[in-house]
Amino acid sequence: MADALHNWAARIHAGDTRAVSRAISAIENGDGRAEGLLALLFPSTGRAFLIGVTGAAGTGKSTLVDRLAAHYRSKDQTVGILAVDPTSPFTGGAILGDRIRMQGHAADAGVFIRSMATRGLMGGLAQATADAALVLDAAGRQIVLIETVGVGQDEIDIARLADCTLVLVVPGLGDDVQNMKAGLLEAADIFVVNKGDREGADQVELQLQETAHLSAGTWQPAVVRTTATTGEGIAALAGAIEKFRAHLQSSGEQRERILAQWKRRLLSLLEQKLLQRAVEETGGERGLELLAREVADRKKNPYEAVRQLLSAERAGREG
Amino acid sequence: MADALHNWAARIHAGDTRAVSRAISAIENGDGRAEGLLALLFPSTGRAFLIGVTGAAGTGKSTLVDRLAAHYRSKDQTVGILAVDPTSPFTGGAILGDRIRMQGHAADAGVFIRSMATRGLMGGLAQATADAALVLDAAGRQIVLIETVGVGQDEIDIARLADCTLVLVVPGLGDDVQNMKAGLLEAADIFVVNKGDREGADQVELQLQETAHLSAGTWQPAVVRTTATTGEGIAALAGAIEKFRAHLQSSGEQRERILAQWKRRLLSLLEQKLLQRAVEETGGERGLELLAREVADRKKNPYEAVRQLLSAERAGREG
Repeated sequence: MADALHNWAARIHAGDTRAVSRAISAIENGDGRAEGLLALLFPSTGRAFLIGVTGAAGTGKSTLVDRLAAHYRSKDQTVGILAVDPTSPFTGGAILGDRIRMQGHAADAGVFIRSMATRGLMGGLAQATADAALVLDAAGRQIVLIETVGVGQDEIDIARLADCTLVLVVPGLGDDVQNMKAGLLEAADIFVVNKGDREGADQVELQLQETAHLSAGTWQPAVVRTTATTGEGIAALAGAIEKFRAHLQSSGEQRERILAQWKRRLLSLLEQKLLQRAVEETGGERGLELLAREVADRKKNPYEAVRQLLSAERAGREG
Repeated sequence: MADALHNWAARIHAGDTRAVSRAISAIENGDGRAEGLLALLFPSTGRAFLIGVTGAAGTGKSTLVDRLAAHYRSKDQTVGILAVDPTSPFTGGAILGDRIRMQGHAADAGVFIRSMATRGLMGGLAQATADAALVLDAAGRQIVLIETVGVGQDEIDIARLADCTLVLVVPGLGDDVQNMKAGLLEAADIFVVNKGDREGADQVELQLQETAHLSAGTWQPAVVRTTATTGEGIAALAGAIEKFRAHLQSSGEQRERILAQWKRRLLSLLEQKLLQRAVEETGGERGLELLAREVADRKKNPYEAVRQLLSAERAGREG
């Protein structure tokens, strides 16, 4: 078992894409081996630069990510792409999207593309994505692009994992800057006005520049205009990313961000472990169900129920 | 203190809107008194019917909610509205929206409108919203409308609180059914094609009917077309809600949903309390920060760090 894990880790360190892919599957499936594997990989991580790409549906994230990947490949950097797309029996979106997109880079071993479908996973999407990024990092990918569909809290959490977060906006999506989720605006290091050849792009750019001025941090988010379908503006975008990366390092902000990130991740891991332990030690699913019944029937209030769970957990601890 | 809480609870039971409003503020602010107050209110809850209204920005949720409120008022039912809108220094959206909307119902004490702004609140938006709904329930509101902006995981969690969830879709928002967040489709009890006078409404309705056919449950989501601005279709929508409510009761599904809901809520409360306790007992923020530093420097892996936190917590428990 330990040998198999070491072997698996060694193949990932060597950049073996099948081993990488299996590791990400293990993370997605909550496979018990994932933790041991990640512990082995961990010492050789912390080298990749993580770029988050987010924005509403229809903003052209995938095309932009593909263009950025091609740009970095032309500079001889290795690239990993994680496309985080909560999938379901209704759509099967993740797998389909993968197949279509793989075609562009299929011949190029320098780009690894993987969709993440982790709905309902304990610890949540953000944690699984962070772990998958660690795997790509350990496999020697220098640039990891994390693409997220939608603009909910999950996506904001995922954006926070990245060293640099791009927020895409397009003109005329009925989803203008005023309507954007506030947390997303604040998460942006760089605003990308994609589909920049469309009518209304000037106005969106202006609005974003005004928003960027309101930023409280030491970095005022850059606003870059692109047309990902033609490749227009991609080099300028890569330039803005480079400039932000230099700022992160010179200002010492990179260290601060990384520490804040690890604090969040440790808390989230701790939460998951505590909950797991508590549910096990207090009668498991069945105990929880009985309590839920008493609460639904107003025989106990929720706080009494939780106090009961907590003291059962305490007793389990001491027994 | 206990007297003040009893007095406060009595005023809420009497339907006093200022007391209700203060209670929701206490919940939003994580005020320590909220838990005691909710414990007092809890026995008289479980009577309101909760209707969740969700969909992307620009789908006309507020207008639809206002129309539904007016409809229920005309049937002599009391109504509470919770508009859940993660706000921020950038937009101040919640407060502004409140002011504008209060005007319509200001003279009618039968409608209580309140925006929830709970970003960053421990336990999250869904829990705070659920607690606020309990307050309205205890205050005798028969119908509680919960409106959520956006379509992220938070919103899906909030949708799950409701007894009946409406998902709004409008034609031509670049956000068609294929692009909709899968979890949201699954959360829908009723699909509302709002702005039903727009071009493309027929097509959206057809797509939603196909989606509804795929539903695995015993209830096939109804599809209702409305034009909230004119009130067109609102009575039909209320009829569909009534039909669903009857189905919930006759099928026994209501009980199942309520139990599943309480299981989720107890877990979420437990998680929150465990985490609070663990952080306190393991050196607080400072201890966490030191560990985050060791992880960032690759001196420990995250799993070792969490094991250390867990055993410190265990020692604290036993000491």
